[in-house]
Amino acid sequence: MRFSPLVEQLMDAFRVLPGVGPKTAQRMAMHLLERERPGGQRLAEVILQAIEEVGYCQRCRTLTEAEVCMLCESPRRDDSLLCVVESPADQLAIEEAGGFKGRYFVLHGHLSPLDGVGPESIGLDLLEARVAEGLIEEVVLATNPTIEGEATAHYIASLLSEHGVKLSRLAYGVPMGGELEYVDGGTLSRAFNGRLPFASE
Amino acid sequence: MRFSPLVEQLMDAFRVLPGVGPKTAQRMAMHLLERERPGGQRLAEVILQAIEEVGYCQRCRTLTEAEVCMLCESPRRDDSLLCVVESPADQLAIEEAGGFKGRYFVLHGHLSPLDGVGPESIGLDLLEARVAEGLIEEVVLATNPTIEGEATAHYIASLLSEHGVKLSRLAYGVPMGGELEYVDGGTLSRAFNGRLPFASE
Ligand SMILES: [Zn+2]
Ligand SMILES: [Zn+2]
Repeated sequence: MRFSPLVEQLMDAFRVLPGVGPKTAQRMAMHLLERERPGGQRLAEVILQAIEEVGYCQRCRTLTEAEVCMLCESPRRDDSLLCVVESPADQLAIEEAGGFKGRYFVLHGHLSPLDGVGPESIGLDLLEARVAEGLIEEVVLATNPTIEGEATAHYIASLLSEHGVKLSRLAYGVPMGGELEYVDGGTLSRAFNGRLPFASE
Repeated sequence: MRFSPLVEQLMDAFRVLPGVGPKTAQRMAMHLLERERPGGQRLAEVILQAIEEVGYCQRCRTLTEAEVCMLCESPRRDDSLLCVVESPADQLAIEEAGGFKGRYFVLHGHLSPLDGVGPESIGLDLLEARVAEGLIEEVVLATNPTIEGEATAHYIASLLSEHGVKLSRLAYGVPMGGELEYVDGGTLSRAFNGRLPFASE
């Protein structure tokens, strides 16, 4: 037995969400249709609105429906410190760990020439222009401690080397091969405090 | 730090799904906005369409966008056997276990007088009319093996007692206090084969 075509389509559609297999997708579809139609309606409407309206902050490229995000607009952040991360989730993880009071720049990925992801795809032209403004004294390269994240950090370091900014990297303490998003706050906070000068070669 | 209002709303909206806490909701929102906008658009559209169009089969009350569901319309099922379940998920679990070739009736819940869920809320008027048609010889009361499921089965048994149908219950083998939806197919299949006459008192 299968459910009706539309109910089956609903189950299939839930599979787009991370970590959702066939059984979970079925449970979600049933729960929504049996008990949560108003909540489901709201979820669908918010998804459509977010897809339509949420873009990148013009200054830091984090996700926002505004032209410039709240954090870029805040007068209470240190303009001399810029932290470069691969994703908004990494940015959130660092914020929640506490301690860092500078600004951010979000790459939305890392360099991956084989997939056609070059410097401009991850906003490095915007990053260089930002550093060229002259306010930034230190750039913390907080890309993921993976091969691709390290390669991206090295590329950025070489790109920014002529601008006379200090470059640093999170202290190890963050596990090699892991993803920042899943590192606990304590580890992340300590790694931040122990950050090291970035050695380009 | 919080994300922008719309991104926060998206995270909150995902919490309507079963088993989705704040961290999972955040991961879903990020995944969708960063990597799966077409899939998210499709999910939202299918949710809206399903909420609008999916109702109850006029004959068995399972979820369907048609007036009468595929299983009720199938000429290959035994009209003399009717299995009463609490939910479409339970119906699916029994179908996937295999072995039962009769028809179904879906209550969408169980009697719960304190919550205002009476016999008509779970379609018992329709069920009685169906049995009164005279084709059904046996009704399998496959409500959940919980206090409420048992009470509902007893109520139905007494409602149908004057119609001269045989009443049966799933053999134990289904764990007490559990929910049919999560019982493995083998257990469920054996419980079906070993079903017992329903003792009303
Ligand atoms: Zn910003
Ligand atoms: Zn039906």
